[in-house]
Amino acid sequence: MSGVTFSPVAAYSPAQPPLPTPSPFSFSVASTRWSSRPPIQTASLFLRGLSLVLSFGSALSLVALPSTNTKLKRYPELLYCFTANIFTVLYAAYQIFKNICDIAHRGIFVSDKTSDFISFIFDQLAGYLLVSASSVAVPVIQQMDNGNSLWSASVASVCLSFASFLVNAVNALLSGYKLCKRIMW
Amino acid sequence: MSGVTFSPVAAYSPAQPPLPTPSPFSFSVASTRWSSRPPIQTASLFLRGLSLVLSFGSALSLVALPSTNTKLKRYPELLYCFTANIFTVLYAAYQIFKNICDIAHRGIFVSDKTSDFISFIFDQLAGYLLVSASSVAVPVIQQMDNGNSLWSASVASVCLSFASFLVNAVNALLSGYKLCKRIMW
Repeated sequence: MSGVTFSPVAAYSPAQPPLPTPSPFSFSVASTRWSSRPPIQTASLFLRGLSLVLSFGSALSLVALPSTNTKLKRYPELLYCFTANIFTVLYAAYQIFKNICDIAHRGIFVSDKTSDFISFIFDQLAGYLLVSASSVAVPVIQQMDNGNSLWSASVASVCLSFASFLVNAVNALLSGYKLCKRIMW
Repeated sequence: MSGVTFSPVAAYSPAQPPLPTPSPFSFSVASTRWSSRPPIQTASLFLRGLSLVLSFGSALSLVALPSTNTKLKRYPELLYCFTANIFTVLYAAYQIFKNICDIAHRGIFVSDKTSDFISFIFDQLAGYLLVSASSVAVPVIQQMDNGNSLWSASVASVCLSFASFLVNAVNALLSGYKLCKRIMW
């Protein structure tokens, strides 16, 4: 739907060559100055960083205790939570790397459209994975003894995992919006 | 996508006032003939119906057994799964009612934009709720005795709940696309 070509203004001024796309590529090939980047990209980078920190904290709090490794095997739910958060950490790291490459004008190793599709699909996946992992870990915590060091670690992990889910849900909205903008023109 | 109104011919005839938006309202106020409805709306109605049936089946399989009511109290995870599915049933019923009202040209009690926002938010909520509820119920099933009637009912309920989640995830994508289309013009 090339809105510009068929809007009344563009139709009445034949001297100005109509651009094929009104806005979506401002995301990908803009200038290097930070202030000229669209705010959605800055916000996205910030949210990716936040997601990385939260998920890393969640995974770390599960494996930081010396006795945890044996207990992770006893509670497969906690192992699931750990795995989901490690997946999120890796994915957020990839996204931050890609965003920084974008900003620094280095070669982008996938096309913008493919990258938007990948972001959209994996954001959805990460969101559903994290909410599932956080939910599964809650009944396990209820069965543990209160005040145990593993109990504290699990509570911290689930809270961080849930916070990371919220951040990823917002990320999924943003990447959905970006994808929509790209495929609609 | 009402291509007729915004074809170049229409843009060059100044007698006709240009409409502010090129396409999104083709979803809401089109003709009553079924074949002229956009396929996305038919697909959406079908998916809502599927979601209703699946969630209703999931909730029903938990309460159909005579001994289940007491056992639902023993397993709060199953009660959570039941509640999430009831919420989805009510929401899907509202959406089907609204879609049928739309098609039958009766008065729509909320504006199109508000309705799209509501659909988008509640589709996301329903998706996350269902995946969370399905995940929480899985460890409970593992703890039960195999072959028990409650065990069979729970397995059926979780499978239907997960299927309903998948349908709701597709619905969330569709309503996100619709919302994007509406707010972008």
